[in-house]
Amino acid sequence: MTNRSATAKWQGSLQEGGGTVALGTGAIEAPISFSSRFEEGEGTNPDQLLAGALAGCFTMAFSFILTEAETPPDSLETEANVTLRQGDDGLTITRIDVAVRGRVPGIDQDRFAEHANVAKSGCAVSKALGAVEEITLDATLVN
Amino acid sequence: MTNRSATAKWQGSLQEGGGTVALGTGAIEAPISFSSRFEEGEGTNPDQLLAGALAGCFTMAFSFILTEAETPPDSLETEANVTLRQGDDGLTITRIDVAVRGRVPGIDQDRFAEHANVAKSGCAVSKALGAVEEITLDATLVN
Repeated sequence: MTNRSATAKWQGSLQEGGGTVALGTGAIEAPISFSSRFEEGEGTNPDQLLAGALAGCFTMAFSFILTEAETPPDSLETEANVTLRQGDDGLTITRIDVAVRGRVPGIDQDRFAEHANVAKSGCAVSKALGAVEEITLDATLVN
Repeated sequence: MTNRSATAKWQGSLQEGGGTVALGTGAIEAPISFSSRFEEGEGTNPDQLLAGALAGCFTMAFSFILTEAETPPDSLETEANVTLRQGDDGLTITRIDVAVRGRVPGIDQDRFAEHANVAKSGCAVSKALGAVEEITLDATLVN
């Protein structure tokens, strides 16, 4: 059975404490801290993990769609960038900007962008993030 | 400026290719693959990253709320588990089960569970996941 879980541990208060996030059975574990989320600290933070979830999901879906269209990618590189707003109701993720660059033989920019949009709207993590006001996509073929 | 980004790289088709997800500026990087998502493969997958984002965000929010209530936690440990369904419209995240165990001096189970529910509904990643049908919470005080 595939493992789709993660465990966060935390000790102490938010600002003075600290913890870790372990993915799956724990082979990958990283420190999390207040400073990594709100200042220039080491380690990772929930927003980076969310960006990674979306970038990974989108990229896998895009590869699948390109392969189904008989133009499998040589390479895809996707960056996702999460924007937070601090408001009266606490922190809110207001937008996620996704930018993908791909090397894909036998395709043009328009078709590349079209497939990228299908991947963006169809991937499981995109669909789950229904409450994020805006998820942008910039798709560039760099053949 | 805090880094809330991640980069996914992929080479080749979904089933035969593979890639990596790098968090932030790349100090943390993990392989992703079809097999890590759908079989028993090594590395991580987008669903684990999403579980980590939610577990981390919830746990930090919970620590903050407990501290504001003058009962800062000695320790919190949260597991999040993502369930996917394969349907006509592709993969969908249908539920995420969150379970937290905490050691918190000066609090009882009812108050602990109450604060946990506030953290669950208020944390930025929970709020973003508005399209997930069900996010459950099991909160246990283990003093």
